[in-house]
Amino acid sequence: MPLAPLPPVLIEPIVRVALLEDLGRAGDVTTDAIVPSDARAKVSLAARQAGVVAGLDLALMAFRLIDPAIVASVIRVDGSHVAAGEAIATLEGPAGGLLTAERVALNFLCHMSGIATATAKVVEAVRGTKARVIDIRKTLPGLRAVQKYAVRAGGGVNHRFGLDDGILIKDNHIAVAGGIRAAIERARAAAGHMVKIEIEVDTLEQLAEVLSFDIDAVLLDNMTPEELRRAVALVDGRAITEASGGITLATAPALAATGVDLLSLGWLTQSARALDIGLDYVS
Amino acid sequence: MPLAPLPPVLIEPIVRVALLEDLGRAGDVTTDAIVPSDARAKVSLAARQAGVVAGLDLALMAFRLIDPAIVASVIRVDGSHVAAGEAIATLEGPAGGLLTAERVALNFLCHMSGIATATAKVVEAVRGTKARVIDIRKTLPGLRAVQKYAVRAGGGVNHRFGLDDGILIKDNHIAVAGGIRAAIERARAAAGHMVKIEIEVDTLEQLAEVLSFDIDAVLLDNMTPEELRRAVALVDGRAITEASGGITLATAPALAATGVDLLSLGWLTQSARALDIGLDYVS
Amino acid sequence: MPLAPLPPVLIEPIVRVALLEDLGRAGDVTTDAIVPSDARAKVSLAARQAGVVAGLDLALMAFRLIDPAIVASVIRVDGSHVAAGEAIATLEGPAGGLLTAERVALNFLCHMSGIATATAKVVEAVRGTKARVIDIRKTLPGLRAVQKYAVRAGGGVNHRFGLDDGILIKDNHIAVAGGIRAAIERARAAAGHMVKIEIEVDTLEQLAEVLSFDIDAVLLDNMTPEELRRAVALVDGRAITEASGGITLATAPALAATGVDLLSLGWLTQSARALDIGLDYVS
Amino acid sequence: MPLAPLPPVLIEPIVRVALLEDLGRAGDVTTDAIVPSDARAKVSLAARQAGVVAGLDLALMAFRLIDPAIVASVIRVDGSHVAAGEAIATLEGPAGGLLTAERVALNFLCHMSGIATATAKVVEAVRGTKARVIDIRKTLPGLRAVQKYAVRAGGGVNHRFGLDDGILIKDNHIAVAGGIRAAIERARAAAGHMVKIEIEVDTLEQLAEVLSFDIDAVLLDNMTPEELRRAVALVDGRAITEASGGITLATAPALAATGVDLLSLGWLTQSARALDIGLDYVS
Amino acid sequence: MPLAPLPPVLIEPIVRVALLEDLGRAGDVTTDAIVPSDARAKVSLAARQAGVVAGLDLALMAFRLIDPAIVASVIRVDGSHVAAGEAIATLEGPAGGLLTAERVALNFLCHMSGIATATAKVVEAVRGTKARVIDIRKTLPGLRAVQKYAVRAGGGVNHRFGLDDGILIKDNHIAVAGGIRAAIERARAAAGHMVKIEIEVDTLEQLAEVLSFDIDAVLLDNMTPEELRRAVALVDGRAITEASGGITLATAPALAATGVDLLSLGWLTQSARALDIGLDYVS
Amino acid sequence: MPLAPLPPVLIEPIVRVALLEDLGRAGDVTTDAIVPSDARAKVSLAARQAGVVAGLDLALMAFRLIDPAIVASVIRVDGSHVAAGEAIATLEGPAGGLLTAERVALNFLCHMSGIATATAKVVEAVRGTKARVIDIRKTLPGLRAVQKYAVRAGGGVNHRFGLDDGILIKDNHIAVAGGIRAAIERARAAAGHMVKIEIEVDTLEQLAEVLSFDIDAVLLDNMTPEELRRAVALVDGRAITEASGGITLATAPALAATGVDLLSLGWLTQSARALDIGLDYVS
Repeated sequence: MPLAPLPPVLIEPIVRVALLEDLGRAGDVTTDAIVPSDARAKVSLAARQAGVVAGLDLALMAFRLIDPAIVASVIRVDGSHVAAGEAIATLEGPAGGLLTAERVALNFLCHMSGIATATAKVVEAVRGTKARVIDIRKTLPGLRAVQKYAVRAGGGVNHRFGLDDGILIKDNHIAVAGGIRAAIERARAAAGHMVKIEIEVDTLEQLAEVLSFDIDAVLLDNMTPEELRRAVALVDGRAITEASGGITLATAPALAATGVDLLSLGWLTQSARALDIGLDYVS
Repeated sequence: MPLAPLPPVLIEPIVRVALLEDLGRAGDVTTDAIVPSDARAKVSLAARQAGVVAGLDLALMAFRLIDPAIVASVIRVDGSHVAAGEAIATLEGPAGGLLTAERVALNFLCHMSGIATATAKVVEAVRGTKARVIDIRKTLPGLRAVQKYAVRAGGGVNHRFGLDDGILIKDNHIAVAGGIRAAIERARAAAGHMVKIEIEVDTLEQLAEVLSFDIDAVLLDNMTPEELRRAVALVDGRAITEASGGITLATAPALAATGVDLLSLGWLTQSARALDIGLDYVS
Repeated sequence: MPLAPLPPVLIEPIVRVALLEDLGRAGDVTTDAIVPSDARAKVSLAARQAGVVAGLDLALMAFRLIDPAIVASVIRVDGSHVAAGEAIATLEGPAGGLLTAERVALNFLCHMSGIATATAKVVEAVRGTKARVIDIRKTLPGLRAVQKYAVRAGGGVNHRFGLDDGILIKDNHIAVAGGIRAAIERARAAAGHMVKIEIEVDTLEQLAEVLSFDIDAVLLDNMTPEELRRAVALVDGRAITEASGGITLATAPALAATGVDLLSLGWLTQSARALDIGLDYVS
Repeated sequence: MPLAPLPPVLIEPIVRVALLEDLGRAGDVTTDAIVPSDARAKVSLAARQAGVVAGLDLALMAFRLIDPAIVASVIRVDGSHVAAGEAIATLEGPAGGLLTAERVALNFLCHMSGIATATAKVVEAVRGTKARVIDIRKTLPGLRAVQKYAVRAGGGVNHRFGLDDGILIKDNHIAVAGGIRAAIERARAAAGHMVKIEIEVDTLEQLAEVLSFDIDAVLLDNMTPEELRRAVALVDGRAITEASGGITLATAPALAATGVDLLSLGWLTQSARALDIGLDYVS
Repeated sequence: MPLAPLPPVLIEPIVRVALLEDLGRAGDVTTDAIVPSDARAKVSLAARQAGVVAGLDLALMAFRLIDPAIVASVIRVDGSHVAAGEAIATLEGPAGGLLTAERVALNFLCHMSGIATATAKVVEAVRGTKARVIDIRKTLPGLRAVQKYAVRAGGGVNHRFGLDDGILIKDNHIAVAGGIRAAIERARAAAGHMVKIEIEVDTLEQLAEVLSFDIDAVLLDNMTPEELRRAVALVDGRAITEASGGITLATAPALAATGVDLLSLGWLTQSARALDIGLDYVS
Repeated sequence: MPLAPLPPVLIEPIVRVALLEDLGRAGDVTTDAIVPSDARAKVSLAARQAGVVAGLDLALMAFRLIDPAIVASVIRVDGSHVAAGEAIATLEGPAGGLLTAERVALNFLCHMSGIATATAKVVEAVRGTKARVIDIRKTLPGLRAVQKYAVRAGGGVNHRFGLDDGILIKDNHIAVAGGIRAAIERARAAAGHMVKIEIEVDTLEQLAEVLSFDIDAVLLDNMTPEELRRAVALVDGRAITEASGGITLATAPALAATGVDLLSLGWLTQSARALDIGLDYVS
């Protein structure tokens, strides 16, 4: 199945906030002063580096909300690989609207494509293993839904979307609860039947203890490939295994090769480097 | 004058959005299930890498909005340099609230400190020159005010906050207007007396033409240090000079040495790498 | 573990909306016209029927937002059983504020306590079986978080909070997908590791087919106790079993006795009957 | 005059809130995973019990906001009686959008039709008398406008919409004011000329006292049919008479037969039982 | 009874919007740059012209939302007459916060006091007659609640707050309905028992026709004092009489002397002249 | 260049707020009760006094948001002079929608046209001088963007839009800073390169001191024409000169004749008198 788009009702408020943030109280004073209302233009959103596209729906919505007369033609949908120089979409309509919406549109497209591109690189680096690449909750405030969508566009999969859609027991929860048993039992008692329980462990000893309980997943924190391999063997399919903690594009292959199910990378969303995409005037 | 904080009335809506985004409809199901309501804890926000702090007010507000009983003690205010391992603040109060607010608080603090740290590095790199380090409008949707504040925390200065608080004439405006003269004259006629006009030029020829008009600043796009030096000489104080386009920490010193007034760097806000800050349980 | 309260940051917007809806543009014209500003009163929120309390935090917040000088004293927290005539809380302060906030406070408290009470009755009716009582997504617009909290207050457990925190494959999904295999395989491929998959079946034949795939739960729709017993036997622990469809307080015990894991009841939230709670003037 | 629809500008924010509440941050993960984007379907909103329709505009708006390509065909407008099995509307378009919007659409339609149906039953039960059936302010938070519209769809009439559009003096107002005279005089002095004044009385003695003042309506609380008859005779047309307090479908006819002008029923909106309406796949 | 204040829950959103509108994305750049954070000041809100105070709660809230450390001391509450030069309140606290909030606070106070002052002048001009001074729906977008409160502060009374809290039949309604009878009958049938009906007439002939129906009030549009006197005589107490249309401070006394019940003046809120109030630095 | 319209994304939220404020919870009860849904009408927005049009886009949006079937035909765009009796636009469509939206549409149009008309009169009064007419921050809460747009429509120019888009140093800033030098130096150090600095002076002595620093503009407060002439001569082109303080239509010409660059008038927006525009039924 291809990547499903985010519903318009979900992205429209985010795009409106971004436009209002840029327009302020006076609007685009440069364009208003200089560009005649009957001037028309055709522009192209073009990648200046190779990467994976994400956020095109938000970018196009920015143009349409500024001027509904702007017509877009999509060349590369979200999730597509683009080469440097390749066009992603063309837009045609009133020149003023194209100029006014340009920066907001690109801010969405460059940021989200940056996340998708980084994700895709890690996905590619671990190809051939069973490891899936996932995000975590290290996201930028207000942008979680669109950042996690961008991870999907890059071939990654999403971890929890928030504190409410999964139980993840960390060391501090265990400490406050007074032990692993108390923590897991309380979690089981409270959890709805659609809620999974994952627990963080730092050592193989902790892992052994944890495996005596009914849990869905274990977060194996900051392990070397060798430790991770032993952890995966110890789990032996009784829980999903997630490797986490400082994983980079360089270290991912060795970790993935251990047979772990998931590699989680906070930097995909927290330290995303924008993909360089620009807007060229065609005519 | 020390860095002025952002007013609470401005940051509170952003922090509330971030908390609601993380709490979803069910809240922190892990903490709710596991942590007794009378458990208390003392924690420390501690830098794991050296850097410059920014966003502490937003982080502390996240904790207070989750539980007003949480009491904070600030050690390093925004704009301070911290060494790896140094504590930025301590928090004390109900353990549940500390655990629930942790990720949102860190998401603000790590992202904004990342921007401040990157800015400070460039500021340091150009020390001794007259060049100031500035951001542009390549920001992440909904976060412009806090990202630009983080640039200030790092010792940078802000360019326009939006399309409405300054006129910046780019090549496409000139093309649509039918020439530099028409563009500048229309801009002057429309601009309020508190609005400055900057114009982008790519070549020394364009610069020479532009200087025959009354403008406040010139954006010198993608010039080599040598071109930039000649441009600065040509301007000779008649306008503020801004160098822009692909400037990195490595290329900044040579560009700053040309005598240019400003170096603008979109990546400070668009591709910010988070500063690694964690939350440690003290007791 | 006792019932965890909803975080204030989550309920405050809902209480504010309810107050503004009642105050309109002119406020409480009756109280403003009649009640002197220095009049004080002491009132009691008292159950007029036996039931289970839920929504007290929202009710008290309504009073506090109208007048911070109103002081509350809680007698029976959310999740408590109250007898007819029993006081739940007392409030003391300016009489005008007590009168103005009364209806909004009671609207929350009566509705949510009604849900908690209905839930508790079903929970009581199935005591001794392993069946847990759960809600579904048949909730009233804008009130899902507080309605599902009320279910928890009554001793129930929550099913999905929305379309995004669990995969529930219904007959129409299967029809459009072209069969059970396609539907389940696509769901597995897309699902994050914290997302469970449940599938609806109407017959034992469908159930048998479904069980050959890796699923987490089966929704057994509209089955008689006898069918349900056979279904539970067929599943034999390989998936969580949920009975659904027209279950009432009267039919719940026989269904629960089949060994099914969950009974889901849409009417708990969709057709909730308010618990009769009133506000009495003590002095 | 037929029932006037609620203006779109008033219902759109409510429908958007409901959709966002259901979509969460990830959207409809089941449909996104399983349903091909080119799958189309035709569905029917069909009553599973007899009743009165209300809320169709909100239901249809939910579908259109999810996917503007969904086309609706209305069979039974709001206020219509439908038999069990009868179709209310058909919808045709992308199958994914139909599945995603289904629950939110039905949540509006079932709840509001439930209110309309209950109202219509009471209206029918008092046919032949002059009594009109009215709601009160016992509504669910955030839903007052749509619930009161549903009462109108059922043939009822609306009491006050909030604290601001009418003066209703209750026993506590009188107690705080220091008597009926003071309360009514202050109310008259403050009230705009479009604001009516109603006063609650519990006994015939109070009623006699109240009638010596200029008031528009009397709320006769918790009276037996016999008491009510005497009260109506005592009023003798000098004020509108409203019977209130625990009125049921069974007790309404005898109360209406007393000649009272209005029967007010809080449970119409506070304890509404949903009308069972489902969505059937036609093709 | 003294003027009742607007509830904080109603005014807080309006004050927040006004502050955010003034702070923009960067806040008060002047004060942030210049005023040391430890500078304190004491200021006084002082009338520069005689008038009636309104809006003090909103003004003080603006200061408190900018800095909760600012402490206010109220000298003249809303509804008070102040002489030129008289102080209305003093404020003491951080100088930066006082400077930042000053303009927003004054914008509320000057505008609302301007409305109250104009209202009070007309009220004074008609003293000794039975005429009350009322506003209409000619208000400024988003400010209706606070403008109508200011009218009350000036001794006026409020007409309808919106399209929903009273029926006002104008000539165009009658034309579309096909006559006065049809219009009034339909209105009566639809109106709740707390909703009054007023009808606009331009001539004594129309008035005579209208009086044969059961209506609550008549709007006598654009009549001379002599016409109005005859109209009042014709009505003879059977309906409330409202004179409307171009009434000024100069023409009000003669119109009021006709015995009409109400004089409505749209310019009180639509063309309000601000009362000159300034902020003086005491120390 | 003609007046640029405000972007729809910026005005739509303001128009929605205004409509919801007028519709309340029940909508237009008069029209709903009386006007058949198939009644159609054609109306004209017509000036009853001569003036300058502003706000037509907001007025037309009010009609369209109430009923998208209403079709408008614009005769006089914003910024046009209209004579008394002249039509500004015609609207055709469902009569109910036209009646419901009328007041909100006119509230925008009359208020904004009032500002534009007042501005145009002052602009006309100073024609032949170099003085431009500007607004200040004395605006009505929530309406700054549309009020300042109306000033532009009248031929005026805008001063700062808020506290964030320009530095304006007033006497209190100087007092707190400890002198003019400190204030200006701190402002320069903090200001971005697109931010201008203006400073208020009351006397020629202060002006002389101020001119020794690098500032962009001086605000010459409450000067007589003679003082102003000397001030302008003293400045001698080294800064933009703004005359401020109690300037009226009558005093503007003499002040403008001094050669000052700007006349700022707070009353344009703070005490705007509405232009009388009405809605006539054509058929």
